[in-house]
Amino acid sequence: MKIAVDGMGGDNAPQAIIEGVFIALEDFPKLTIDLYGDEQKMAPYLKNHERLTVIHCSEVVEAEDDPARAVRRKKDSSMARMLDAVAEGKADACLSAGNTGALMAGGLFKVGRIDGVARPALATTLPTINGDGFLMLDLGANADAKPENLLQYAIMGDIYVKQVRGQKAPRIGLLNIGTEDKKGNELTKASFTLLKEADFNFEGNVEARELLNGVADVVVTDGFTGNMVLKTIEGTAGTVFKMLKEALFATTKTKIAAALVKNDLKQLKGKMDYTEYGGAALFGLKAPVIKAHGSSNARAIYSAIRQATIMVEHKVCETIAEKIEQLPKPE
Amino acid sequence: MKIAVDGMGGDNAPQAIIEGVFIALEDFPKLTIDLYGDEQKMAPYLKNHERLTVIHCSEVVEAEDDPARAVRRKKDSSMARMLDAVAEGKADACLSAGNTGALMAGGLFKVGRIDGVARPALATTLPTINGDGFLMLDLGANADAKPENLLQYAIMGDIYVKQVRGQKAPRIGLLNIGTEDKKGNELTKASFTLLKEADFNFEGNVEARELLNGVADVVVTDGFTGNMVLKTIEGTAGTVFKMLKEALFATTKTKIAAALVKNDLKQLKGKMDYTEYGGAALFGLKAPVIKAHGSSNARAIYSAIRQATIMVEHKVCETIAEKIEQLPKPE
Repeated sequence: MKIAVDGMGGDNAPQAIIEGVFIALEDFPKLTIDLYGDEQKMAPYLKNHERLTVIHCSEVVEAEDDPARAVRRKKDSSMARMLDAVAEGKADACLSAGNTGALMAGGLFKVGRIDGVARPALATTLPTINGDGFLMLDLGANADAKPENLLQYAIMGDIYVKQVRGQKAPRIGLLNIGTEDKKGNELTKASFTLLKEADFNFEGNVEARELLNGVADVVVTDGFTGNMVLKTIEGTAGTVFKMLKEALFATTKTKIAAALVKNDLKQLKGKMDYTEYGGAALFGLKAPVIKAHGSSNARAIYSAIRQATIMVEHKVCETIAEKIEQLPKPE
Repeated sequence: MKIAVDGMGGDNAPQAIIEGVFIALEDFPKLTIDLYGDEQKMAPYLKNHERLTVIHCSEVVEAEDDPARAVRRKKDSSMARMLDAVAEGKADACLSAGNTGALMAGGLFKVGRIDGVARPALATTLPTINGDGFLMLDLGANADAKPENLLQYAIMGDIYVKQVRGQKAPRIGLLNIGTEDKKGNELTKASFTLLKEADFNFEGNVEARELLNGVADVVVTDGFTGNMVLKTIEGTAGTVFKMLKEALFATTKTKIAAALVKNDLKQLKGKMDYTEYGGAALFGLKAPVIKAHGSSNARAIYSAIRQATIMVEHKVCETIAEKIEQLPKPE
């Protein structure tokens, strides 16, 4: 199996990317990696490895680049070349920690949608108290969505959790502002009816308050709401930890306590760290396109590569294509 | 000034309500309260007070009651009677910790909208790290909203923060999935254009991640998103505190630390407790209708009564009416 990796994307590139690549090569003996990027900038962190090929690219997609045009314009960027490799069948999947919008637009443009998938969705696994995590989509690939899109998101999420995590009947939840069947806005009300008729294990509406308690295995929502909820979770957890840190360093007494619980708190923060679960994947494309968090360290890059290999191995994209083909085509 | 209070609403009624009422009577020498509820059930907690009148009601709106019909059907409920008192001019404002939906529907039906306000909005002050807090609306009065509704929410929020908190030019933010001007879904994109042209201090788009850092003084959003974000903040903060508690009671060492920081953590939790800032108010009605949190204790009820008195004193509803009258009427 070959994974194409963008060596230049994210806050800690190229070092963290390359370190992550080497951990993955170590861990997965059948994995081959093609690493795209500026050879000179990557050189200090590189060493020879029989399953690693370095491909020089003269351009880099920057965080500030216009997402819609970046990949089209920067034809020799590491992101564009990595996507080309997948589009041309030279790699089975690809991953980048760079500009999310550019990767989504580029993935759609180069790798392309599975026939019948109206809109791809950005999906990631978020933490739950019991450590199982749940898959949430769409996290922002499309700000606006129709009920038929949400139905497809649910189908894709269901397949992912079945294939990758081996769960037999994942509980599918519709993110809503109340658990009652008739709650919500126009979109969720119409989506509820569609999801209820589908042939997966639909749990009904789930509330944002219960997400981290593991109320469902797959949670579907439109990209605007999904992105909002994701950022609210990040922001709130960050704020609480920040306030906690301030409280723990306020007095001599609290500093003693802080020293005693330092490792436990670090562990706690790790539990909330969803980069441990892998990256975000663009569901609905012909091959796995993985987005690692922009602030990914080597460990997060490793997790994202691992996720890519699992998606390839368990034929997630192929299964989505088969399933969608059997459905009545949406407009 | 007279405030009508629903003695029967919320998880801790009537005890917490009545205790809150007495703290308020103590604190505000010019305040008169009419307390509506079941005289027999309230009796154990009541004592005579020259500025308190108890009005017996034979019915109670329950949490399970259909929000749309509860107040209309239960004509002699404490919630309906309290709203009647405001509608008939016998009280200046009212407050309940009961069924939110019923209070919103009842407020609309009995107290009525200010002329020109298309949709009322539920607003509350949420905590920020620096303790200032920010006003967010709509939190769920209307799941679906149009750009003109969001403009009116902003106008009402601007007036509230100016009148009640004495801020000269409150920073108005539009909740969105990115800070760039053109980000968002159809609703936020169209709303951005409208808000930009208005004559308040529009800060542009604000992200959910930055809310608790005090990125704006007033944050406007549709009721679906607002409710979602509110519940995500509650759920995430609750989860982190729960995990923290578990971590602190895991071993002897951590238990020692827990004992050392017990009060500091309690204080920290208090900082995140938005009931301290008062209740949620229905903006756009002819008089203040305040919703205290269902789990309100006496202190939270006191805060909500205080908020009602401030809204009356600073003529928030009157100012909103004047301002809305000057605007071109929305459909």
